[in-house]
Amino acid sequence: MEPRSGCPINAAVEVLGDRWSLLVLRDVIFSDRRYFRALLTGSTEGIASNILADRLVRLVEAGLLSRGTAARGQRAQYSLTEAGIQTLPILVALGNWSLTWRPAANELHARQQFMQDEGPAFVEALMDDLRARHLGRPEPHDGPSPFDRLDADGR
Amino acid sequence: MEPRSGCPINAAVEVLGDRWSLLVLRDVIFSDRRYFRALLTGSTEGIASNILADRLVRLVEAGLLSRGTAARGQRAQYSLTEAGIQTLPILVALGNWSLTWRPAANELHARQQFMQDEGPAFVEALMDDLRARHLGRPEPHDGPSPFDRLDADGR
Repeated sequence: MEPRSGCPINAAVEVLGDRWSLLVLRDVIFSDRRYFRALLTGSTEGIASNILADRLVRLVEAGLLSRGTAARGQRAQYSLTEAGIQTLPILVALGNWSLTWRPAANELHARQQFMQDEGPAFVEALMDDLRARHLGRPEPHDGPSPFDRLDADGR
Repeated sequence: MEPRSGCPINAAVEVLGDRWSLLVLRDVIFSDRRYFRALLTGSTEGIASNILADRLVRLVEAGLLSRGTAARGQRAQYSLTEAGIQTLPILVALGNWSLTWRPAANELHARQQFMQDEGPAFVEALMDDLRARHLGRPEPHDGPSPFDRLDADGR
């Protein structure tokens, strides 16, 4: 796909400027949903099955997800690519914006607040954790993983 | 508009997870296009007139832009609100992602690279400049403004 302009913001927006693509990435990243069925039934926003199928194809084509080969009758597992992992700062920036401009007191806001308070180094640690989980890199840490910390403290 | 879930990423994506909304914000922010006509004719990606009209209404309703009152026969000027100004880190995160994953050597990439190299403090300075330009705050600096620096050095 040739982008419609040479602008880097546009080049990203052509891939990511779609509500459902961003929410699918969010669910893979933060909820570790790796299969079509888990992404469908777990969706808090109620994604439709045909939209999910379409967005998964698009995200694979754009190089943000890879689709594992599945034997007959087996489910295919999706993994983040490095390009997909590096969308995390974009998702965090979106969530941080909401903390100020779409305030709502709930557990998910507490998690976002925790990420905002911890800052960019924590986002880097989350990305390293994703590299271990999705790309088979070695676990980068001793003790609780950053995602465990997010679950434990981000409430 | 009630969001479809309590997730802060979703709350932002419901407003900003749309390609053209993000590109309109980009043109207001980086190209200082404040009028319908300027946004329409200046659009590098060729936004259609009806889409632009729709997105301007949505961005005003969402509180990211304000629309000045125009006398009969006069054009209405759009201004960023504080919530609109604070979308800048999201746009910068999108552009930074492209630097690695959608490489293309051109002037716009050089500007994005300049913003990435300068880091978060420069993004803050750009936001202060937007507050002067759109919200009537005092000019926060002596010498060349951060947008002037972007024009001069980001090439």
